[in-house]
Amino acid sequence: MINNYWRYCNSGCLCILLFLVFPSFVVPIHYDPNWDSLDSRPLPSWYDEAKIGIFLHWGVFSVPSFGSEWFWKHLQDQSPSYVDFMKKNYRPGFKYQDFAPMFTAEFYNPEEWADIFNASGARYIVLSSKHHEGYTLWPSKYSWNWNAMDVGPGRDLLGDLAVTLRKKYDHIHFGLYHSLFEWFNPLYLKDKHNGYQTDYFVNLYKPEVIWSDGDWEALDKYWRSTEFLAWLFNDSPVNDSVVVNDRWGKGIPCHHGSFYTCEDKYNPGTLQPHKWENCMTLDKSSWGYRRTAKLEDYLTIHELLKTMSETISCGGNLLVNTGPTHDGRIAPIMEERLRQMGFWLGINGEAIYGFTRRDSEKPAVYALVLNWPEDDSLILGTVKSTTKTKIQMLGYSKPLLFKTK
Amino acid sequence: MINNYWRYCNSGCLCILLFLVFPSFVVPIHYDPNWDSLDSRPLPSWYDEAKIGIFLHWGVFSVPSFGSEWFWKHLQDQSPSYVDFMKKNYRPGFKYQDFAPMFTAEFYNPEEWADIFNASGARYIVLSSKHHEGYTLWPSKYSWNWNAMDVGPGRDLLGDLAVTLRKKYDHIHFGLYHSLFEWFNPLYLKDKHNGYQTDYFVNLYKPEVIWSDGDWEALDKYWRSTEFLAWLFNDSPVNDSVVVNDRWGKGIPCHHGSFYTCEDKYNPGTLQPHKWENCMTLDKSSWGYRRTAKLEDYLTIHELLKTMSETISCGGNLLVNTGPTHDGRIAPIMEERLRQMGFWLGINGEAIYGFTRRDSEKPAVYALVLNWPEDDSLILGTVKSTTKTKIQMLGYSKPLLFKTK
Amino acid sequence: MINNYWRYCNSGCLCILLFLVFPSFVVPIHYDPNWDSLDSRPLPSWYDEAKIGIFLHWGVFSVPSFGSEWFWKHLQDQSPSYVDFMKKNYRPGFKYQDFAPMFTAEFYNPEEWADIFNASGARYIVLSSKHHEGYTLWPSKYSWNWNAMDVGPGRDLLGDLAVTLRKKYDHIHFGLYHSLFEWFNPLYLKDKHNGYQTDYFVNLYKPEVIWSDGDWEALDKYWRSTEFLAWLFNDSPVNDSVVVNDRWGKGIPCHHGSFYTCEDKYNPGTLQPHKWENCMTLDKSSWGYRRTAKLEDYLTIHELLKTMSETISCGGNLLVNTGPTHDGRIAPIMEERLRQMGFWLGINGEAIYGFTRRDSEKPAVYALVLNWPEDDSLILGTVKSTTKTKIQMLGYSKPLLFKTK
Amino acid sequence: MINNYWRYCNSGCLCILLFLVFPSFVVPIHYDPNWDSLDSRPLPSWYDEAKIGIFLHWGVFSVPSFGSEWFWKHLQDQSPSYVDFMKKNYRPGFKYQDFAPMFTAEFYNPEEWADIFNASGARYIVLSSKHHEGYTLWPSKYSWNWNAMDVGPGRDLLGDLAVTLRKKYDHIHFGLYHSLFEWFNPLYLKDKHNGYQTDYFVNLYKPEVIWSDGDWEALDKYWRSTEFLAWLFNDSPVNDSVVVNDRWGKGIPCHHGSFYTCEDKYNPGTLQPHKWENCMTLDKSSWGYRRTAKLEDYLTIHELLKTMSETISCGGNLLVNTGPTHDGRIAPIMEERLRQMGFWLGINGEAIYGFTRRDSEKPAVYALVLNWPEDDSLILGTVKSTTKTKIQMLGYSKPLLFKTK
Repeated sequence: MINNYWRYCNSGCLCILLFLVFPSFVVPIHYDPNWDSLDSRPLPSWYDEAKIGIFLHWGVFSVPSFGSEWFWKHLQDQSPSYVDFMKKNYRPGFKYQDFAPMFTAEFYNPEEWADIFNASGARYIVLSSKHHEGYTLWPSKYSWNWNAMDVGPGRDLLGDLAVTLRKKYDHIHFGLYHSLFEWFNPLYLKDKHNGYQTDYFVNLYKPEVIWSDGDWEALDKYWRSTEFLAWLFNDSPVNDSVVVNDRWGKGIPCHHGSFYTCEDKYNPGTLQPHKWENCMTLDKSSWGYRRTAKLEDYLTIHELLKTMSETISCGGNLLVNTGPTHDGRIAPIMEERLRQMGFWLGINGEAIYGFTRRDSEKPAVYALVLNWPEDDSLILGTVKSTTKTKIQMLGYSKPLLFKTK
Repeated sequence: MINNYWRYCNSGCLCILLFLVFPSFVVPIHYDPNWDSLDSRPLPSWYDEAKIGIFLHWGVFSVPSFGSEWFWKHLQDQSPSYVDFMKKNYRPGFKYQDFAPMFTAEFYNPEEWADIFNASGARYIVLSSKHHEGYTLWPSKYSWNWNAMDVGPGRDLLGDLAVTLRKKYDHIHFGLYHSLFEWFNPLYLKDKHNGYQTDYFVNLYKPEVIWSDGDWEALDKYWRSTEFLAWLFNDSPVNDSVVVNDRWGKGIPCHHGSFYTCEDKYNPGTLQPHKWENCMTLDKSSWGYRRTAKLEDYLTIHELLKTMSETISCGGNLLVNTGPTHDGRIAPIMEERLRQMGFWLGINGEAIYGFTRRDSEKPAVYALVLNWPEDDSLILGTVKSTTKTKIQMLGYSKPLLFKTK
Repeated sequence: MINNYWRYCNSGCLCILLFLVFPSFVVPIHYDPNWDSLDSRPLPSWYDEAKIGIFLHWGVFSVPSFGSEWFWKHLQDQSPSYVDFMKKNYRPGFKYQDFAPMFTAEFYNPEEWADIFNASGARYIVLSSKHHEGYTLWPSKYSWNWNAMDVGPGRDLLGDLAVTLRKKYDHIHFGLYHSLFEWFNPLYLKDKHNGYQTDYFVNLYKPEVIWSDGDWEALDKYWRSTEFLAWLFNDSPVNDSVVVNDRWGKGIPCHHGSFYTCEDKYNPGTLQPHKWENCMTLDKSSWGYRRTAKLEDYLTIHELLKTMSETISCGGNLLVNTGPTHDGRIAPIMEERLRQMGFWLGINGEAIYGFTRRDSEKPAVYALVLNWPEDDSLILGTVKSTTKTKIQMLGYSKPLLFKTK
Repeated sequence: MINNYWRYCNSGCLCILLFLVFPSFVVPIHYDPNWDSLDSRPLPSWYDEAKIGIFLHWGVFSVPSFGSEWFWKHLQDQSPSYVDFMKKNYRPGFKYQDFAPMFTAEFYNPEEWADIFNASGARYIVLSSKHHEGYTLWPSKYSWNWNAMDVGPGRDLLGDLAVTLRKKYDHIHFGLYHSLFEWFNPLYLKDKHNGYQTDYFVNLYKPEVIWSDGDWEALDKYWRSTEFLAWLFNDSPVNDSVVVNDRWGKGIPCHHGSFYTCEDKYNPGTLQPHKWENCMTLDKSSWGYRRTAKLEDYLTIHELLKTMSETISCGGNLLVNTGPTHDGRIAPIMEERLRQMGFWLGINGEAIYGFTRRDSEKPAVYALVLNWPEDDSLILGTVKSTTKTKIQMLGYSKPLLFKTK
């Protein structure tokens, strides 16, 4: 409540005074289920400071691990490569649902995952709790026999990661992706059904990011989005710290939410007035793991850092996706990219994490240069120097020589 | 409507007269959702005349086909033989639900089944549409990814049998077993949920028997049984011909319903005032198929005929159960018992089907003798003979010699 | 040696005398590797007295259990129903050999099998040690990774039955079927290879029947049959008691061997000068288990007894085949036939087992009548009665009335 | 024959003369089955020039892909981690051989593999035709039902790679690894058996490297190694171009053979008098693919290049191993290392491939420097410069400044 109060104040000192004299004047902030009210909530500061997150797409689609995480939909739509894959490798009549018992996760070790995430320099995680296939990574009572406890791993995959992360790396925030929409669930009485599910897992797992998706087929009224968010911001166990994205119904993305994702791999290239996030993926063609991905299908570390620089310098956060395997591993090529990113951030992180920290004790402007200048000299167009100006390269102890034009 | 009217009349002739002169007088019967009203509905005559039905227990339990159709429950309850079976034959962590894709039904041929049922002399079929495991043999939208269309056979097992039977043997009535209760369904919002399911499949498959089960945990109010039955008797597509059993809530069995089943293998041994049914099973220890059943575990044909005689002579119907295999077969030992029963009925059926037809043109009393008399002479205690009396053995053309004491 | 000697003698007393006086005269019998010598060996008496044996066809073919035990060959030959079965039920590229790990035998209980065999009245067993597929039911070192110990059951299926039978029912003789020929073994250096195998298992399992098969493609010289048999009759651990059939090379069947089988289901209908055997099968269309076999595909008990009567009355033995399942069971319909046969033999066995015992203390002629005479009176054409003649029905205590023409 | 002749001559011109005048004088070289003679055969020049090869370990061990390619042996020896892995993930009684049908190779595309090998800069390939498990990657008739055609892939994995490589990249030489020894083959009549196998595949696939292994248990006499090699060098279809390693029997490695491998990962650190090869592997702990390998378990590109430099500069060839997956892929992390190596060779290859080419038109000495010198200046101790000396960095166009001490 005190936190809320503080947000309410314009001036810290005055508020303290008032607080001491007229405590009854203090009212907790309450959000109403409409976008004006919801949008008035300030962005919890951790999110802007975090800068880098890790996105994880894991589910029954990780079993065929062919094509993409939209395997089921494409197969249903008779997409030739998917139909052909099934014909060649499975008996006639083998269905997507029949893959579920093969989702074994025998090598799943949340500690090892957490170590990789930490080494990558990421400060938050967004795990696909339920993708459009409807299969949940936790024992959802709304998804009987179609969740990771009932069929396949026999384990609360989601809960185990949440617990491990909080225990081992409490500076990393745990968040969840959740699809409103489900491709094939005939019982999709969406307006009620979904609200139940999300309330339920918020209470259970206390995610600090709720990354909604699959909203495009219906209006926010239909999904009861504003009601849910008002509850989330007012009364949920994460009301203070949670952030949410913008995919809450037709017409909402890029207009409402703690941060905007607009569309996948959104990278506007200019400074944005509202906090945003670039969700992108190491495998250029898929969010879920693909066995057939070749080296050329993965971003190089240089491409990844380039995207990171573009994103951070325009005020966005970067959400880097990887798809774990059906047996619970993060493939070494992805581990490598994440650790390479972390290695780079170990030297240059000051420029990334501190990018938006304006009034630091040691004022600085960071320039991210994507390639080594051909003749070893770099021209910075818009920067003005004073007599006190120094120019340094992160990771290099000596000052650089420079001259002003 | 005319059918209902006819049942209402005490005297055919008078009714016809009234009908001709004062047609407006005719009112369709309407049942109210209470037992008094529901119990006032006369038993559709086909059921009493049918005498013999076939009960079928088929589901995911047919995959392990070990122990009984209660496999899941016993395993969950840590029953040693079930735990041991799993330990010896499956990887650790293999769950009951993981069996579902192995329910393949590749040899399922409803025509062959229908031929066997017809040859057995049975006049109705009761197929387990949904047992306590919750898995449905038809594509129920209330049981997503836990039904025969979505996982396993990929086929509407129930619908295919219904269609085949009606087409090939329209004198055999098609009925469905349906468990109100489900062991492990966490979403079991029973009062609503179940009503939806049953309405749904009645409209779709038009069963003429609804054999309810799993009622014991709650009152009929909770299950909304009387509401459902009122709808079934008034407005459903089978309102005229459908019969229902008596398992509609705590305290209801043996008290309400078209016919009473009281408890499994009910065989009272005396003439009953209300129509009843003895549901029993060829495998003495299980309703579902058991791979480990030995010959001694099956009823002999003599034991089956003995039970049939006891049942029919006390006014009951006999519902003979068999459990098909996971690959869709009726095991030859069960086919044999059913065909042996049919062979016997081919000779002696007059005594069974005609047992309750009191005012036939050719009045007769049938005596069912369970063993051949040791000295070739039989004493019938309670029968009185007249000078016109003849004694015959069915299947034997010459009259038998007899004398009165 | 003394046993051999005794057989050689025509008169016990004289021989003893000779033995006492001129022991050097006693020469052990030695058989030479030619048919004249081998054929001179008297038939061990147990075999003629046994009358009824059980044949067992079990192997990798028991996994698909479709069509017949020639599944692999028919599939390779592109027989449409086999090709279709594979197409519908397995992924493309699934091969016969890929079935082997599914041969699990988890319910295999040699004690239960032995109980059934004993109850059937059989006095010997012939188990398929190796069918034409080459897969052996024991850990043959000549069939690495293609035997029941290495792939599939992980167990010496053959040895476990041999041990159990000898321990529990030592009046039942244990024998082995063995195919000389293998359809697809590219290393089939038959002349050597096979000799090794048979020697090997004779030493290990001491079978008292060797039931050779798959001989038709080559002459006995090629298979080194006479060398093997000479070793078997002279030096093997079963030299006294073993009997062999007649399938030892092109032109040999029906001409050489302890007993003749001539062709499958051989049933000549007249008394034969040489001991013979009718090997036949309960499933009229297959020796291996077929899941798709219907009741009508199995012999009725009446058909089985008719065949038995025809066979025994013409001097043959009856070898009744059944095919166990991939999980190690004898299906109840087959158990039933075997127990029905045993039940009948319990009453009428005297006529079967005693059929060829000519000079018993109580001289008798047995007539096997296949149907009940229509008017309750039976005419026996060729029998002559004396004043001492009595006529009885086995299982019925009172003498039957009769008159001579 | 003419090729052999040429090698034999010390002086081309004279030989031609002799050849023209006294052709009868020309004798083809014939090697005798002893090491003196065999060792007198000059090394086919292609091998020394090739410098870099790719080693491939693929087999049934790629299915569990756990621990190492010695999975079967370690499991048999009850190594705890292997026993534990089986217990947790498979049913009791599941055997190593039962893995074979899961070796599916559905994504195996020899063209893609060939592209990667070519891009890596390698000039020869050594594929495991048969590892100690005895399973062959080609349809060997000496390994019935235990080869890639009979069980698992249903394909000649080896032949398909050989054909593809020769067609698409004929500058890459195709070679084969072959284990003399087999852990568990009971029929291991080694002296004969093995000779058959190797002769057989040499004739069929014409490998230009034969990389023998599993020799340590017996002397070369036992394996008939010299007989085989004499045939190989005299009469085989690859007699001119084939090279062989040194693992041909106890005491032979490091003493005889076209090139010495001595022990795995042999890297002597000094110039050697006889051609040698350093076989090493990208996964530091295994030659076969391991699903559980983490990024840290793989060599970095820097470690790989360091080893390459050490090896080449001491006169060795480098054989870089990778383990394909059970479904036929080369994991992206390994593809990356191979392509990184190829990228480096694209710039610096002149120093590697040309290392031993002493009398080139453009004499040069190459210095391989493993780290960037700290103060940007490098001291080369043993090199002497003349007035004509130039110093260059490969991949950099301008000459470097230098001074002599």
